[in-house]
Amino acid sequence: MNIAIQNKKKQIPMNKTTFLFAFIAVTALLFSSCTQPEENKAIQTDPLPSWNDGTTKESITNFVQSVTKPGSDYFIDIPDRIAVFDNDGNLWSERPVYFQLIFAMDRVKELSPLHPEWASEQPFKAVLENDMEELMKYGEHGLLQIVMATHAGNTTDEFEAAVKDWLAAAKHPRFKRPFTDLVYQPMLELLTYLQKNDFKTFIVSGGGIEFMRPWVEEIYGIPRDQVVGSSIKTVFEIIDGKPVIKRLPEMNFIDDKEGKPVGIHKFIGRKPVFCSGNSDGDLQMMQWTASGEGSRFMLYLHHTDSIREWAYDRNSSIGKLDKGLDEAKENGWTVINMKDDWKVIYPFELQE
Amino acid sequence: MNIAIQNKKKQIPMNKTTFLFAFIAVTALLFSSCTQPEENKAIQTDPLPSWNDGTTKESITNFVQSVTKPGSDYFIDIPDRIAVFDNDGNLWSERPVYFQLIFAMDRVKELSPLHPEWASEQPFKAVLENDMEELMKYGEHGLLQIVMATHAGNTTDEFEAAVKDWLAAAKHPRFKRPFTDLVYQPMLELLTYLQKNDFKTFIVSGGGIEFMRPWVEEIYGIPRDQVVGSSIKTVFEIIDGKPVIKRLPEMNFIDDKEGKPVGIHKFIGRKPVFCSGNSDGDLQMMQWTASGEGSRFMLYLHHTDSIREWAYDRNSSIGKLDKGLDEAKENGWTVINMKDDWKVIYPFELQE
Repeated sequence: MNIAIQNKKKQIPMNKTTFLFAFIAVTALLFSSCTQPEENKAIQTDPLPSWNDGTTKESITNFVQSVTKPGSDYFIDIPDRIAVFDNDGNLWSERPVYFQLIFAMDRVKELSPLHPEWASEQPFKAVLENDMEELMKYGEHGLLQIVMATHAGNTTDEFEAAVKDWLAAAKHPRFKRPFTDLVYQPMLELLTYLQKNDFKTFIVSGGGIEFMRPWVEEIYGIPRDQVVGSSIKTVFEIIDGKPVIKRLPEMNFIDDKEGKPVGIHKFIGRKPVFCSGNSDGDLQMMQWTASGEGSRFMLYLHHTDSIREWAYDRNSSIGKLDKGLDEAKENGWTVINMKDDWKVIYPFELQE
Repeated sequence: MNIAIQNKKKQIPMNKTTFLFAFIAVTALLFSSCTQPEENKAIQTDPLPSWNDGTTKESITNFVQSVTKPGSDYFIDIPDRIAVFDNDGNLWSERPVYFQLIFAMDRVKELSPLHPEWASEQPFKAVLENDMEELMKYGEHGLLQIVMATHAGNTTDEFEAAVKDWLAAAKHPRFKRPFTDLVYQPMLELLTYLQKNDFKTFIVSGGGIEFMRPWVEEIYGIPRDQVVGSSIKTVFEIIDGKPVIKRLPEMNFIDDKEGKPVGIHKFIGRKPVFCSGNSDGDLQMMQWTASGEGSRFMLYLHHTDSIREWAYDRNSSIGKLDKGLDEAKENGWTVINMKDDWKVIYPFELQE
């Protein structure tokens, strides 16, 4: 049923009276100072200028137009306009490894003077020696050890400061730029486009919720309380008369795969109508979104650009997109072909 | 420092040019269709009509005016305008017992045909026999048994339907009205007043998050994703091709006392500037709110009206307000005296 709805929407004819509307809008502007400039502007300007024209872009704009048009069969009430976005590899890059892992590794180095034992203790030794191959041998358990050693044991204020300090100083190994420069320009436009159309946009990421919150508001225009992510346990304490929240070395919630619909239900409490992801880790939240009644939109980002970004899918160790690609095809979900659909990848390309 | 700020705010002189402003506003309305009616209306109408004039009301309106006035020393940026409200005994009544417990007890009765063993098994037997005294003997563990038997084992959709069905049919034993009629009119006005001044209002309750979400949007104008509460564990499953979230009989998080600042940090990720509660269970979120820098407002509701509602504080088994009352006094937090500060308690009084 969802397929039918989405396919139908693709067939909504393109607006051929743009010129007439623009003329009316300009005339109205000349004769009145009380028009609503936002609406008129929407008629005249492309909300997604970094997207190439084609079926992907058209399916997005047709969806938004049809669900926001009063009286439309596809109309969605404003409170139901919940849009969820994965973060790593979907709003910003995730290569050579998840940026949060680079943060954790840098933090191991920073904290190592306090831990002389790490020089001979794995997996910390591998990190200090920049031996990625050795590090990977310790698998998930090794990564968890590193996360707990670098993300816990401090207060939430201290951790936030550590994230901000790192982001201000660290550079991406390939692009030699701050990691927050590696957000996708077309996705920034999509977020803004949805927000202007009264969608409430949420991040739903496997990444740490407290790793994201310090910067998402400035970078994506997404409020801190609209972030769903993985978390460790915390506890409230009054230390020397000052209330603090301390971060404990114990997992609280992993917001990935089957965890994503659970996280969405826990934090948002409403089934999304728009779901954007890029890996098999996002498949369950796609299925959850697709299972609702009425209009909805499932969007997969396929990393196909080996020159401007990276190309990977079925056999990738990071951001693997295998089952998701099949399911997208089966169900008629929209798949972004990064190479063909995006004019630019990063915002800094616009200034070059 | 917070005391000083709050006290200073109380001394901000009342606006004595209301008439002049009203005159200008009306004139502007006559000569232009481009004015901003919301602003003009704010000058003319009382945002808190169900509150008696006095220091409590004045301290609230002075705070809101001073933190929203551009250029004010007390100005708070819009994203930082986070206001948190306890629910039971703060936005609606909590007597004779928490309404969610009445829901759970009614649900035991409803489900009892499927559980013939409950007729002889405590604490269920006590519920089926309406023996409150006996029930209380089983303490927290007994209540937890009842919550797990009545709140888990179904899907989130099924649980939501159960809550809605109950609210549509159940009546409060004293007022013989739906439980959602027993919300406090003055607090509804306060929520609206804050929302109109760009505060993001959140519920932070010890009650179940999924017990509140089905009705808070309609009743309080608070979106479902702005509810923080206690929760049980859930899991995502695909049953007969249909994705569902199942509710497990295991506690996930208790959002009470020390849990409240933890819940606020987890769900909101930002320290509130406005905190409203009524019991010692709200003390830690008051302390957490008070510990921030800049302007902030701590508000305790003191149940002092034995005629129109209930009067209770230091020795109450439900909604005990003891340490909180002392700390409010010490720190100069604002305390609502329900009997004196509120013209009406419930919205239905306005229609009578």
